[in-house]
Amino acid sequence: MILKNDLLLRAARGEKTERTPVWLMRQAGRVLPEYRAVREHLSGFKELVETPELAAEVSIQPVDILDVDAAIIFSDILVVPDAMGLPYELVEKVGPRFSKTIRSEEDLEGIKVADPDDISYVYEALKITKRALNGRVPLIGFSGAPWTLFSYMVEGGGSKTFSEPKRMLYQNPQLAHRLLDMITESTIAYLKRQVESGADLIQIFDSWAGILAPEYYREFSLKYIKRICSAIENVPITVFAKGAWFALEDMADLDCQTIGLDWNMDASIVKSILRAKTLQGNLDPCALYGSFDDIRKETKSMLDSFGDHPHIANLGHGVYPDTDPEKVKCFIESVKEFSS
Amino acid sequence: MILKNDLLLRAARGEKTERTPVWLMRQAGRVLPEYRAVREHLSGFKELVETPELAAEVSIQPVDILDVDAAIIFSDILVVPDAMGLPYELVEKVGPRFSKTIRSEEDLEGIKVADPDDISYVYEALKITKRALNGRVPLIGFSGAPWTLFSYMVEGGGSKTFSEPKRMLYQNPQLAHRLLDMITESTIAYLKRQVESGADLIQIFDSWAGILAPEYYREFSLKYIKRICSAIENVPITVFAKGAWFALEDMADLDCQTIGLDWNMDASIVKSILRAKTLQGNLDPCALYGSFDDIRKETKSMLDSFGDHPHIANLGHGVYPDTDPEKVKCFIESVKEFSS
Repeated sequence: MILKNDLLLRAARGEKTERTPVWLMRQAGRVLPEYRAVREHLSGFKELVETPELAAEVSIQPVDILDVDAAIIFSDILVVPDAMGLPYELVEKVGPRFSKTIRSEEDLEGIKVADPDDISYVYEALKITKRALNGRVPLIGFSGAPWTLFSYMVEGGGSKTFSEPKRMLYQNPQLAHRLLDMITESTIAYLKRQVESGADLIQIFDSWAGILAPEYYREFSLKYIKRICSAIENVPITVFAKGAWFALEDMADLDCQTIGLDWNMDASIVKSILRAKTLQGNLDPCALYGSFDDIRKETKSMLDSFGDHPHIANLGHGVYPDTDPEKVKCFIESVKEFSS
Repeated sequence: MILKNDLLLRAARGEKTERTPVWLMRQAGRVLPEYRAVREHLSGFKELVETPELAAEVSIQPVDILDVDAAIIFSDILVVPDAMGLPYELVEKVGPRFSKTIRSEEDLEGIKVADPDDISYVYEALKITKRALNGRVPLIGFSGAPWTLFSYMVEGGGSKTFSEPKRMLYQNPQLAHRLLDMITESTIAYLKRQVESGADLIQIFDSWAGILAPEYYREFSLKYIKRICSAIENVPITVFAKGAWFALEDMADLDCQTIGLDWNMDASIVKSILRAKTLQGNLDPCALYGSFDDIRKETKSMLDSFGDHPHIANLGHGVYPDTDPEKVKCFIESVKEFSS
């Protein structure tokens, strides 16, 4: 199917575009009242993730309501650990929680490389979304980076320090690599199926990149991201490693097209390190708490900081749920206006 | 009084020392069974902070037990907001919590620049500690950076995003500056009294530095740290701004002697940016979960990364409470052995 708006894909490939494409991480989510309306009739977050028609509905909402240049499939990075044998639940205002954790060889019992068929509800959601979008904008698929999924599986939930997964790197690196390898294999199969099901671009989220010392990041995270990037074909890949400013030079070597930047990355510095990559980001999500005038100003200044480097506009993190949707629209319209 | 061991102070002044001095952030704390023994008889954390004899006792413990090259006074950064009219409590395993928050001009009612006399228990603890140390090692005083204290006062406690204090920067920067100014004035008077009471060196902790975009960090944090550094005389100052890698070049201009580094700062890069500063840090606290052999290896590699740049060895963050004290000793002994 020919895309009517392929700005995102052309920018990802480093091509000059008539204006900068824009979308928001977590655009399909609580920031939209229309999302909350769908969500409130359900037993929980997981029901939404696992019901393809509903996941598709909320994935399309931001395209209709916010007029973004891409849809991203509504799902969660934890569907992969779930398919590996470690079910999660998402506790409102607390975050993810696993009923068991992996801290020793024995804990690996019952954990397997995921059968990609066990995550069919995501492929189904992608197919329905793709059909409904009817070529209006590209559709983004995603996964967590192995290190981030590993962190949740070992810690058992969120944490300020993630000292449990880090402990394993220092105490039992062999076990860490064994689990990271299983996650990586699961992720590759999962992402390939996402591409077959219609994903036009894949984003890999390494949310906990920033808690590792540089050489540990290279060994326990980047190596596995590299394997994923090399295994996925036919679509551009974006790697968003939050807080991994120390690894920017290494990221230049990844077989991916775009690097996502959080809001404390200085675009003027990053541009020179990542000359051959498209950059995505990176307005502070809290900037959308400001006035309409300030949002226009901040957005312009963000666009200016990227200059004519290939760029996909976004926030530096997921949009916060208590953001006024009108402010989100102001951000999107400002990108379109100022970059034209 | 002449110090028998002034390695810390000479290293802070950039002088060559016969070996690298070493201490640990949070060395006076839950990592030591001797600390927990003192703590368990008390009603809570605050009683320990506010009882000078006991605060002095736990401040001296790591000098006796771990043989570190400095004592740091046992206290909490939140004594300043407390003296400003915003009392806190420390909830075990949750963190600090304020009974009220500052979100509007009206919330400033009852908040004042602290009378430094209201924090006399800290000066008393410093004096007792100083006397008891009897010149064995220098005594470190400290405060929170205004931005970090502001973050707690506006958020009301810990947070993953600190979106409330950040919201104020974007929605009401005047109010933010007003409160930051009051915190800064309070902190300057407080630190001057710490120096008069025997602190040989002052460390400023900017724990939430890393959540601001670079220009916001300059305007809402660094500016105030700068004012403190200029106001404090007669002792060296260390600034530890966690996660503020993006502001390293600005820190070169601070009127302070030492910059603390967290564990994802690459010493080889930082050395060239901060040529005229002593650097403090920066082993990953989780490295102390490793074997004795690995700790020796990691410590040596950390020391090597600083080369002959003026250096104070430390972790890149406070020592985690569940660390084996024997592993802490191994770190300290390794620094002494390898840097001699």
